[in-house]
Order: sequence, then structure tokens, then C-alpha cells
Amino acid sequence: MHDIKIAFLGTGLMGGPQARRLLGAGFSVTAWNRTRAKAETLMPQGATVADTAAAAVKDADVVITMLENGVAVGDVLFDQGVAAALKKGALMIDMSSIKPREAREHAAKLEALGCRHLDAPVSGGTGGAEQGTLAIMAGGNEADFAAAEAVFKPMGRALRVGPHGAGQLAKLANQMIVGITIGAVSEALQLAAAGGADPALVREAIRGGFAGSKILEVHGERMLTRDFAARATATVQLKDMNNALDAASGFNDYQLPITTLLRDLYASLCEHGGAGVDHSGLFLEIERMNKSTDKVAFP
Amino acid sequence: MHDIKIAFLGTGLMGGPQARRLLGAGFSVTAWNRTRAKAETLMPQGATVADTAAAAVKDADVVITMLENGVAVGDVLFDQGVAAALKKGALMIDMSSIKPREAREHAAKLEALGCRHLDAPVSGGTGGAEQGTLAIMAGGNEADFAAAEAVFKPMGRALRVGPHGAGQLAKLANQMIVGITIGAVSEALQLAAAGGADPALVREAIRGGFAGSKILEVHGERMLTRDFAARATATVQLKDMNNALDAASGFNDYQLPITTLLRDLYASLCEHGGAGVDHSGLFLEIERMNKSTDKVAFP
Repeated sequence: MHDIKIAFLGTGLMGGPQARRLLGAGFSVTAWNRTRAKAETLMPQGATVADTAAAAVKDADVVITMLENGVAVGDVLFDQGVAAALKKGALMIDMSSIKPREAREHAAKLEALGCRHLDAPVSGGTGGAEQGTLAIMAGGNEADFAAAEAVFKPMGRALRVGPHGAGQLAKLANQMIVGITIGAVSEALQLAAAGGADPALVREAIRGGFAGSKILEVHGERMLTRDFAARATATVQLKDMNNALDAASGFNDYQLPITTLLRDLYASLCEHGGAGVDHSGLFLEIERMNKSTDKVAFP
Repeated sequence: MHDIKIAFLGTGLMGGPQARRLLGAGFSVTAWNRTRAKAETLMPQGATVADTAAAAVKDADVVITMLENGVAVGDVLFDQGVAAALKKGALMIDMSSIKPREAREHAAKLEALGCRHLDAPVSGGTGGAEQGTLAIMAGGNEADFAAAEAVFKPMGRALRVGPHGAGQLAKLANQMIVGITIGAVSEALQLAAAGGADPALVREAIRGGFAGSKILEVHGERMLTRDFAARATATVQLKDMNNALDAASGFNDYQLPITTLLRDLYASLCEHGGAGVDHSGLFLEIERMNKSTDKVAFP
């Protein structure tokens, strides 16, 4: 049993299994979720369930948030009374994926109240959350990161990549590479098919070389089997690309021409019937453009 | 000792070690190279050296070419008398990287002369050639590919991906993915740095997830250490992107927006002092654009 008391706010698809990992590691966890029933599923593992977010945090040493976006985090912290209810010196760890700018604002506001803040978004999906193998990208002060290491451990591999907001920036860098590499594989397989080669064999021939990537493996397979059921939607990928460009514009108007083009392509995919398909459905958008049709050919 | 007689035309940086692998596997090899001394280095392993390309092929069952580009292959085949000197039914395997259209033209011309053709470009560099671990992407008839399998085996892993030209198309697909993924990693690491995160730690944090790729590993490392000594130059990458777009325009004017943008970015890198840097130097071009300077900051 650890003596660190944790409040976990947002125990949904990701937060639920993360909180369960913390309970399994012996932490005392008070859970809160907007839909209370989702927090209650943690009671058999020993969680206490609170009626409000503010009530959940009042004795907590560490508060973890895992919410939809920056607006939701800001609302819970500053409109639902969490910030005001925090113990002096409490450490707030925001594991939601939000804009770097929002993360820096939250950190500054909490600091003014005598509290500490880390942004610590994750990559790895629900599988990673369940198995405790999430990649955790943290931004904030070194001492706060060191203090949080025992808390991160049951959830995955945490790395501090810079000051406040840097964790969110790393997450955006991750999403940029994912979104652009999906585009690379889409065009390569489309060209191969258009020229009469077998795209499945082309993928097989090139996967072991410099073209090899997780995206060629996983999303390339989805393209070949035309399995575009959403694991991450084109809409979410579009949001990520917009957030990356929004962050860049805040850094002395930093220009990212490839990300800009891909943002436009994901937007076009969404406009042509692909908003709800998997982000690997960019393959369908390249196909649609070349057939000059109004809708992507989603099965 | 195999009873297949091989003529190997072009025994340079790649062709030399490939011919050596064939000799090591017991094939009879007659070698020719424009600079004769390069062919002569194969004599201790048992190669016969011919004075002209036409003389090299006259008794050959299989002719392998490993030359600079399609123009060089066409010159050797049709201007230097190789096609005319081939035995009826001889199998010509072109392992050079040339345009798919050129490969189809060569195949048609040879077929008219009663000879067979496979395009079989490779990926894997001189290391792969020496160790016999090249990825070999073959296009042509199935029966000819089957007949060539014993010849491919000492050189690497061969896969037939479609009809004449399809091997070259697979190579272009490979180069497109490489060139675009370098762009993805460049922008992601530049954004991280511009926003005050440590790009080396960001790469470390994301490498195990969906953003993971050979390019993030190898070329990402070159970007972080600013080691842009050329393994493959920006100029060659630009040529590859142009060849991919040239091929696409021949397939009913197929549109590849991402490849088009990257072609322009590699062209801009070359124009701003980066022609001779490694293709991972696209990182420098993104940096240059944002500093509005006239030259990339090549160390």
C-alpha cells in the first residue's frame, strides 16, 4: 500500500483501465466520472467513488485527469471547483490530449494557487492502458516528474521531454508522424495498384527495408483488406493536425508545409463521406480524387 | 557448380558484390564493366572478364545488368550490341533502378528478338549486396521469375510483384515512402524543438508506438546529431520523386499530392545548398524555410 492518495477524474475508455492499474499497484484511488456508473465499475478493485470532481480531490496528493479535450479539463479544474479544492502542494497530472498552449495556461493558473502541474498525454490505446504499457510523454518541472514516477509506473513508460506543454507537443509530434506516414503508404500502394503491380506483394517486398514502419504494418494491412472500421477516426486525425498547426503558429508562426497539406487531405476525406472511417481511410481519399467522385468508396 | 552461365554487366559498387555472391554460390560468371579494372577484381573468385558487353553475353543463359539508369541500360542493350548478341531464349534480368516505362519498353524490344526480360531492382545498399540480403522486387512473367529463383537466391530475397515494370514500380513505392517519412520526422522534430521540447527525448518517447519506423530510427538519429554526410543524396531522392510522378502521369494522369509536395521540398533543398547532403537533410530545409535564409545550415 502506497501512502500517496490519488484522485482520478475521468474513468472512461482510457481512464478506467489506467485507474484499475493504479489500484492493482496498491494506490488509494478516489474516482469521479461525469457518468457515475463508469466510476463505480472500479469499486470491486477498492476505489472510492465521489459525487463531484471537487469532492474527489479534497484529500488527494495527486490528481489525475483523463478527459476529452482542453476545454473539458479547464471546465473541471476551474469551473467545477477542483482547483479551489486542491490541497496546497498537490500535484495535478493531466493525461488528456489537449493543446500545448492550454496545458501551459493550466500550469500557470495552478501555480498561482500553490499547486503543481504536469502534462502527460499518452499513446498506446486501450490495450496499452489495460496492460500498463502506455507511452507517457511528460512536460513540467523535473522535481514534479521525479515525484510522479511511482504513479506513472503501473500505467506505462514515462519520459519527461521538456517544460510545461512539452508533453502535449510530443503527442502532437507523434500524431503528425502517424498522419503523414499514413499518407505516404496510401500514395505508394495506390501508385503500385494504378500501375498494375500487386499492392499486397509490393508491401511484402518493401516492409523489411527503409520503408518499414508500424504504419506500413498495421494501417497498410487495413488498406489492403479495405478494413476501415474506425480505431481512430479521420475526424480525430484532422483535429490532431489542426492542433499541431495551431501550436506551430504560436511558435513565431512556424511553417509546416507537409502537415498543412495532410490537414487539408484529412479535411477533404471528412467532407467526402469519410469523417467516421479509420484514419487509414486517407487511402480512400487518394482513390476518390483520382476517380473524381463525390464520395469515398467506404464499404 | 550450376550449369547456368551468367553474364554480369556493370560490376560497380552494387554489381561487384552481387557478382561475387553468384561466384561464391558456384555460378559461372562472365563480367563486364565500362571501367575494366572493376570487373577484374572478380577474377580471383573465378570470373571471366570480357572486353565488350556484347562479347560477355554471347554464351550466357542469364544476363544481369546493374547500371546507372534507364538510358545506360538502353545504351548497353541496344547500342552496344548486347540484344543482338543474346542467345535465343536468354533471360535478361535488369537489376538497375530505372523508370517503369523504360523497363516495359526494354521487355517488349527483347521479346521481339525472342528473348525474355525481368526488371528486378533492389533495396538494401552495398551492405545488403555484400551479405546477400537485398530486397529484390521483380516484374515480368511468372515462368521467367521461377526460372530465375536460383540466380536471385545468393543475392537476397526476391518477390515477384506483377508484370513487366512492376518491380520498378515497387522500388518507386519504396522511395516515396522513404522520402515522405523523412519529411514527417523532420517536421515533427522541428516542431518539438521550436516549442521548447527536447527533440531527442521526444523521439525516444514516441519510437515504440505507431510513429515508429526505420526512418525515425536511422534518419531521425542523423537529424538529431546533425550528421548529414550523404548515404543517399537529396539529389537522388529528388530523382526518385520525379520518377514516381512521371510513372503516375503515365497511369491516366494519376494524382499524388503528397509526393508532389515532397518533390518540391527536395528540389528546394537542392536549390538552397543541399544537393549533396543526405536525404535526411530535408530537416535542414524545414529549418531554413522558417529562418528565411538562402542556404541550409549544413555543418
